[in-house]
Amino acid sequence: MMSSNNSVDVLEDGAFAASKNSWNRYYSNSVVQPLLTDLYQITMAYAYWKSGKIDDHAVFDLFFRTNPFHGEFTIFAGLEECLKFMENFHYSETDIEYLKHALPQGIEEEFFEYLGQLTAKDVTLYALKEGSVAFPRVPLIKVAGPLIIAQLLETTLLTLVNYASLMATNAARYRMVAGRHINLLEFGLRRAQGPDGGLSASKYAYIGGFDGTSNVLAGKLFNIPVKGTHAHAYITSFTGTQELKTRVLAHKETGDKRDLLELAIDHRVQLSKLLDISTEESSEGELAAMVSFAIAFPDGFMALVDTYDVKRSGLLNFCAVALALNDQGYRAVGIRIDSGDLAYLSCLARETFERISEQFKLPWFSKLTIVASNDINEETILSLNEQGHKIDCFGIGTHLVTCQRQPALGCVYKMVEINAQPRIKLSQDVVKVTMPGNKNVFRLYGADGHALIDLLQRVDESPPEVGQKVLCRHPFQESKRAYVIPTHVEPLYDVYWADGRVTQAMPSLEEVRDRVQNSLRTLRQDHKRTLNPTPYKVAVSDNLYNFIHDLWLQNAPIGELS
Amino acid sequence: MMSSNNSVDVLEDGAFAASKNSWNRYYSNSVVQPLLTDLYQITMAYAYWKSGKIDDHAVFDLFFRTNPFHGEFTIFAGLEECLKFMENFHYSETDIEYLKHALPQGIEEEFFEYLGQLTAKDVTLYALKEGSVAFPRVPLIKVAGPLIIAQLLETTLLTLVNYASLMATNAARYRMVAGRHINLLEFGLRRAQGPDGGLSASKYAYIGGFDGTSNVLAGKLFNIPVKGTHAHAYITSFTGTQELKTRVLAHKETGDKRDLLELAIDHRVQLSKLLDISTEESSEGELAAMVSFAIAFPDGFMALVDTYDVKRSGLLNFCAVALALNDQGYRAVGIRIDSGDLAYLSCLARETFERISEQFKLPWFSKLTIVASNDINEETILSLNEQGHKIDCFGIGTHLVTCQRQPALGCVYKMVEINAQPRIKLSQDVVKVTMPGNKNVFRLYGADGHALIDLLQRVDESPPEVGQKVLCRHPFQESKRAYVIPTHVEPLYDVYWADGRVTQAMPSLEEVRDRVQNSLRTLRQDHKRTLNPTPYKVAVSDNLYNFIHDLWLQNAPIGELS
Repeated sequence: MMSSNNSVDVLEDGAFAASKNSWNRYYSNSVVQPLLTDLYQITMAYAYWKSGKIDDHAVFDLFFRTNPFHGEFTIFAGLEECLKFMENFHYSETDIEYLKHALPQGIEEEFFEYLGQLTAKDVTLYALKEGSVAFPRVPLIKVAGPLIIAQLLETTLLTLVNYASLMATNAARYRMVAGRHINLLEFGLRRAQGPDGGLSASKYAYIGGFDGTSNVLAGKLFNIPVKGTHAHAYITSFTGTQELKTRVLAHKETGDKRDLLELAIDHRVQLSKLLDISTEESSEGELAAMVSFAIAFPDGFMALVDTYDVKRSGLLNFCAVALALNDQGYRAVGIRIDSGDLAYLSCLARETFERISEQFKLPWFSKLTIVASNDINEETILSLNEQGHKIDCFGIGTHLVTCQRQPALGCVYKMVEINAQPRIKLSQDVVKVTMPGNKNVFRLYGADGHALIDLLQRVDESPPEVGQKVLCRHPFQESKRAYVIPTHVEPLYDVYWADGRVTQAMPSLEEVRDRVQNSLRTLRQDHKRTLNPTPYKVAVSDNLYNFIHDLWLQNAPIGELS
Repeated sequence: MMSSNNSVDVLEDGAFAASKNSWNRYYSNSVVQPLLTDLYQITMAYAYWKSGKIDDHAVFDLFFRTNPFHGEFTIFAGLEECLKFMENFHYSETDIEYLKHALPQGIEEEFFEYLGQLTAKDVTLYALKEGSVAFPRVPLIKVAGPLIIAQLLETTLLTLVNYASLMATNAARYRMVAGRHINLLEFGLRRAQGPDGGLSASKYAYIGGFDGTSNVLAGKLFNIPVKGTHAHAYITSFTGTQELKTRVLAHKETGDKRDLLELAIDHRVQLSKLLDISTEESSEGELAAMVSFAIAFPDGFMALVDTYDVKRSGLLNFCAVALALNDQGYRAVGIRIDSGDLAYLSCLARETFERISEQFKLPWFSKLTIVASNDINEETILSLNEQGHKIDCFGIGTHLVTCQRQPALGCVYKMVEINAQPRIKLSQDVVKVTMPGNKNVFRLYGADGHALIDLLQRVDESPPEVGQKVLCRHPFQESKRAYVIPTHVEPLYDVYWADGRVTQAMPSLEEVRDRVQNSLRTLRQDHKRTLNPTPYKVAVSDNLYNFIHDLWLQNAPIGELS
């Protein structure tokens, strides 16, 4: 398994810094550009413009209605990319040309002139901290500004937040079920939604708590540790030991040259007795492949052992080569198992390593890394935990990057205020009713340090105070109320964008990644468990409750029974 | 509903051509670059290089093992992007610098020099035609060339083919259940895997048979028709008719100016009697919003009618505004319904349109477009078909772009030959056994023009001939054999890349899109039906059968019962 431990070097290297910048430039100008939106945003912009709503001021909330994966929390991610998008919001000349073709005839020319000079400078964007845990109905992002530009941001902000948050949440869930001491690697590039889908997956898996990725470009662009060994093809590319053109490896310290194949064959004979496995059953091609790989990476030898048969071939060949490497002063890293009964095979491998460790007096041999990587999802890990396994590291691809259990987070972007007048979207389905007005959000903490409740208030209310009783109400069920005396009150919003610029120092990827784990620690365990987690409460102040329900009554038509 | 009918204009416009080029440049150099791969490809490359395998020649097959969505066919897509990737395959200086950091210490400098000058020029790539129907085990792409470079292409080719084919297949399935006469629009950008996931979704949905997208950037880059009207926010941004700053619309022919709001209010009074709906129940804000939208788009008036209540507000307001537009010489386009019982509401709307059509002697009014767009998937459409509905157009987002029923196609890339020696990957799971050797594929057609079977042969066999009996064998079940006398034999492979260049004129997006439908027409209906479709047969020649099974026996270890 190869790894990039030189994170700082890489970041400070001039070449990478340059490449990082050029990436950012690409990212903002070439894809995350204002035309990456739904056409209706632009038709609405024209209709608003044409209706004289150019100076209208609106507030929009970006939020989701239910947590993904049958869980009770979500990780908010994607904010930095939203801000890059805001910074670069500008329709190019060819964009305007294209829109003149794509929109119906008869659009006034002045509208295109208006679009051509439009930027996000008059918008203020509030948001939770990237990497925080978040809950249904609490707006992740609040956008306040001129109606037209605020509306034009909708689709792109949703695109940037939805998958990022879904992916970070999924990764965080894998981290929770795997536990803190297991290495988690993202291997999903080949199954993601195309090239950039794969890059986003790698980035947000890392944020959510993965330790590395196989995606080299993600490593280069985001400075995420990259990992990987070899595929079955490497093993099958060798038919026998006669194909080995290089067999000699110099001793790490003494420089003494020995034939690694001969050493491995000798060890294999010994091991076949110790382990009671006939050497005739083990593949010569596999042995040759492993010897060649060990010669290429004597310090990082990790081998795939399931090409032919883990028990009768792969494990025996690996251990023989590992002992041969040991003769030459190198320590092997471990094995990867990509098929079969992972619980059984990992225990078998560990037991084998332990026997060899004892027999050859090599304590480190018992601790060789065991990586498993066959179609793993949350349930597989839970089931392996139950059965008992000896896996140190999971390589997870398809289920992680496609978020198979729920492939989309349903964030929406709803207008809640226009020209200081609140707006409510009613629906027969109560979960679809929006929370009207310009709101603030506070997280109230209890004496044990855990988060108790998120409280939405109208912006003109005074914040809840530590030690003071706060009435928290269910937004829709009149009788559900509770008094909370917080020991700590956290205002959840910061202003991230105002007056045409980003107003906060942006945290590094590592800092966001740490925030995910720190933020999750503030949640009680019962909110986080896999089976029947307890919903975390999101409440409204008494004032906001009354405001919502007055508005609801004003707006709901009185039906007629017939 | 807005549309871009000026496809050709757009393509031929210099500005867009330029922007298209810059996109291509980005696409090839910035994302789909050789570093968009799994690290293990590069570690394997080094080990191959170090083992002296630099002149080894390999053949790899890219194929899937099962059709997605419980179906019995797959659409092959992504080929053009694979070829662009091949054309631009080159490690930049910063790539090499990065790899020196990311790979373990001790890699020989000459390897990086080797990588730095590596291109895909010595590779030959065979493939099915993009947009063809394809089946399990038939390689979609066959790569032949030097082992190292052929191996290094793996991940990127898989990334480019997997999602593209999955998405095109999903779209084609929606097209089949919706029927030929329903408009299908892709609305999924906000729920896709980030920006480029959204672009890929729009592109391959169009190839699979959708008629357009809401994604404006996809429209600009790929020249796909873009569509869209307005969101609920547009409606809720108006509280009452007093907010209408512009109410006047000139008659389309005469130029005679009238107050559109007044006209609409008059029509609403009339209609409320005809339809027996009290005007008091309909929203004034909604009416104002619709009037303003109609003034902005008098020729393309399409309105969302479910913000408050379809029956008691939205439909009445829409019809009133549509009649007012008619007074001024314009024909409305239709409505969009985004919630509720779509079968019932679409029938109600159609019936309303028909009554008005008759009452006002406006035949076109009965044919107004009804778009439905609430969380639609294949099952919803099937259920709507069963219930009966009057929908003309579906706008489909989340379920289409995330391919919710199966969010990844499991294409793999397996070595089948090295230095003219076949390679077989054995597995206890027979579906995972690979088809060894360099193969050709032919599609055999029956007298009725339908495809009968895909036949894999060894490359040195002579192709099946029209009118000649061909023995087709199940690859693994000895007793399953059939004679086929084809009336037409289609060789499935073309060479797309050889001697460092693309060797075929690449079809346009439209041509690939047409091929999907034409190719699907060659399949019998029972292979395509939603419920329990019949598997299409993929067979091997007798020669290939024997070749596989001889090799299998040579390679499979003889077990010991214990």
